[in-house]
Amino acid sequence: MNLEISSLSNGLTIITDPMASLESAALGVWVGTGSRQESRPEMGISHMLEHMAFKGTATRSARAIAEEIEAVGGYLNAYTSREQTAFHARVLKNDVPLALDIIADILVNPAYDAAELERERQVVLQELGQARDTPDDIVFDHLHAQVYQGQALGWPILGEESSVTAFTPAMLRDYSARQYRADGLVLVSSGAVSHAAILKLAEEKFAGLSAGTPGAAPSAHYVGGELRAVEDLEQAHITYGFPGVSARDSDFYAAQLYATILGGGMSSRLFQEVREKRGLCYSVYAFVNNFQDTGFTGIYVGTGPDEAGQVSAVIAGEMDGMTRDVSDAELSRAKAQLKSGLLMGLERPGSRAEQIAGQIFTLGHVQSVSEIIARVDAVDAAAIKSYAARTMAMPSIAAVGPIQKLETLERFSTRFASSTTFGQAAE
Amino acid sequence: MNLEISSLSNGLTIITDPMASLESAALGVWVGTGSRQESRPEMGISHMLEHMAFKGTATRSARAIAEEIEAVGGYLNAYTSREQTAFHARVLKNDVPLALDIIADILVNPAYDAAELERERQVVLQELGQARDTPDDIVFDHLHAQVYQGQALGWPILGEESSVTAFTPAMLRDYSARQYRADGLVLVSSGAVSHAAILKLAEEKFAGLSAGTPGAAPSAHYVGGELRAVEDLEQAHITYGFPGVSARDSDFYAAQLYATILGGGMSSRLFQEVREKRGLCYSVYAFVNNFQDTGFTGIYVGTGPDEAGQVSAVIAGEMDGMTRDVSDAELSRAKAQLKSGLLMGLERPGSRAEQIAGQIFTLGHVQSVSEIIARVDAVDAAAIKSYAARTMAMPSIAAVGPIQKLETLERFSTRFASSTTFGQAAE
Repeated sequence: MNLEISSLSNGLTIITDPMASLESAALGVWVGTGSRQESRPEMGISHMLEHMAFKGTATRSARAIAEEIEAVGGYLNAYTSREQTAFHARVLKNDVPLALDIIADILVNPAYDAAELERERQVVLQELGQARDTPDDIVFDHLHAQVYQGQALGWPILGEESSVTAFTPAMLRDYSARQYRADGLVLVSSGAVSHAAILKLAEEKFAGLSAGTPGAAPSAHYVGGELRAVEDLEQAHITYGFPGVSARDSDFYAAQLYATILGGGMSSRLFQEVREKRGLCYSVYAFVNNFQDTGFTGIYVGTGPDEAGQVSAVIAGEMDGMTRDVSDAELSRAKAQLKSGLLMGLERPGSRAEQIAGQIFTLGHVQSVSEIIARVDAVDAAAIKSYAARTMAMPSIAAVGPIQKLETLERFSTRFASSTTFGQAAE
Repeated sequence: MNLEISSLSNGLTIITDPMASLESAALGVWVGTGSRQESRPEMGISHMLEHMAFKGTATRSARAIAEEIEAVGGYLNAYTSREQTAFHARVLKNDVPLALDIIADILVNPAYDAAELERERQVVLQELGQARDTPDDIVFDHLHAQVYQGQALGWPILGEESSVTAFTPAMLRDYSARQYRADGLVLVSSGAVSHAAILKLAEEKFAGLSAGTPGAAPSAHYVGGELRAVEDLEQAHITYGFPGVSARDSDFYAAQLYATILGGGMSSRLFQEVREKRGLCYSVYAFVNNFQDTGFTGIYVGTGPDEAGQVSAVIAGEMDGMTRDVSDAELSRAKAQLKSGLLMGLERPGSRAEQIAGQIFTLGHVQSVSEIIARVDAVDAAAIKSYAARTMAMPSIAAVGPIQKLETLERFSTRFASSTTFGQAAE
């Protein structure tokens, strides 16, 4: 990567990542604010703001925004997570100025029209319904709610029917004025782009962006708990959570490698034991979610009503095994998976831009590829075993479906004898 | 693209698509057989064969397959569709020979071990359960079953519990011997690959592949019908089907542009009318499914119980409008969307390899990018309006959820006065 980085006088960070071989580009603005910055009445407002950005500006109607970008075959999209909101586009080389103009316009000059809000509220309520109809989606909301009980980080990104119904244009403007401030935004472009051209355009188009620093999120820590929703489904959708580390932690890559060995691919322990050897499921995997100041280890398994009575013991057994031995072959395989994923991601402008933005928010700078590879290579089996031992304290369970036979959290907890844990969990 | 094409003496087609700027490659074998080639007792066997390919060969255990590819950070996957089965890998440049070796091994020397089949049967039954828990997935199976009623093309790719339960190793071997024959397979690689090296390896590794031509699929045609499954869900997941054209039809790109204008993006008529203006849904879109000898136009909308009573009229109105006028701006926008999608897809080795394989099966040759662009550009508004008029005959409906207020197919059909249709529908 040959990154060029500048800042506008209002504080907006601009990072350009040219890729000589490409005829297209990915560009977007990543906003370092998401659902964890919300107060309770604002639950879901980051996501509603994301939607409303497309509903018109001072000079463009919603239809004009859609038509202008699609007239050049471009693709404009957005997403909201717990810590970020992103507005991004994929366009051919010559259409980068248009995409930048539209993204700047929807961020700097949103109309937040009351009639548009009424209509978009209905759309978001429909989106909520769609999420509830997808059990292997909604179960992760339940898991976050248990892991971060009583904290904004545990709230659903889409909000709840009651909060979404109460949003007003004034609330949108308040939240936007507080959070959409130049210090908290980064404009990243990867692909067929030139820094000078992007910078010149951005100076003009983002001039109206409010300077200053956005409101910080309340700190969060692992609490843990259990949510069981018995529903008439074919499958029991079961998730487990355990204390982990933040994205800034020195054990970040140990956590990634732990999840890869435990349940990251076809050769992982969970895939081999739960699916291949016992045929208990189609999907099983482990993951780590790492936020700015906290994180957790997670496991998902989708299984039948009877099998739901068996999986917890098998999973606890595999987690326990990780504390005792991690083979050289497993560790080297997990490192190869992480590194090749990184190298292949470098070939896609969209994933490069997203990676760059994420590192800016987490670390304050962009790590070079060789730096990341060195950090991955530095992790030894002892670090993985130590992570394995510490993450086993204080499990959480969230499950949806025919889960009558799934053992309780109380019973599941007794399977984990370890008493050491991560600092944050003991807070 | 600078394709090089060769054939082995057994008939296997080998296509290499080098991309100078890449350090990684996508490669795979696409098999021109899928669920439409199955007899009724074989329902789901193409998909089961795909699974069993990973369960061991004459010299590799299931675990060895997973470990070998992941040891180099590679990624091996497969999918089954109604007309194809694909086994593909993403690897770094130096690991192309390993990936090719493994793909050849699982295709040429599968073990089809009885004990492994028992276990994998449980996995597939779990996968069936997972699909049934995803209403906006399963509803498309129901739509295919209505559109191609009584024909293998309308069967579910995963099969049914009764068929999956009855598979034996002998059935797998029979089906494989009949369908996995060199004339019906194509090995495609895109990215950091050289034709000479691939060809040399393939000659050795695919030498054991049976020569000959696979069994042909029975021809299929649009029949149409209605499936309503009232279920206790948040949303009504509604799909509509209408007669369309095959992937070989001269109107193929007219059909694609029709679907793009009607419901292909944020500026499309359905998105603007159903979501943006009326707030009736979060998701609405149109698509065309084009098979070798038949095809259909489809629409999906996910909406609430009350809104389910309104959407049919709105959709019928928009479809009717497409028969009367298609503006220059809309047509040019849809062309730009199709063309830029094509150009951006060219930057990803995985999508290039998949495109190449698909064109070989459909057209018998690979179209150049300029050829495709010329065909897209040649479509005029008259061709779109003609497609619009012809597709409106004989609608189908498949819907899942709180659909009590959704109007019947009988009522919906009266909204379409047109009597002209595509040849195949009148068969």
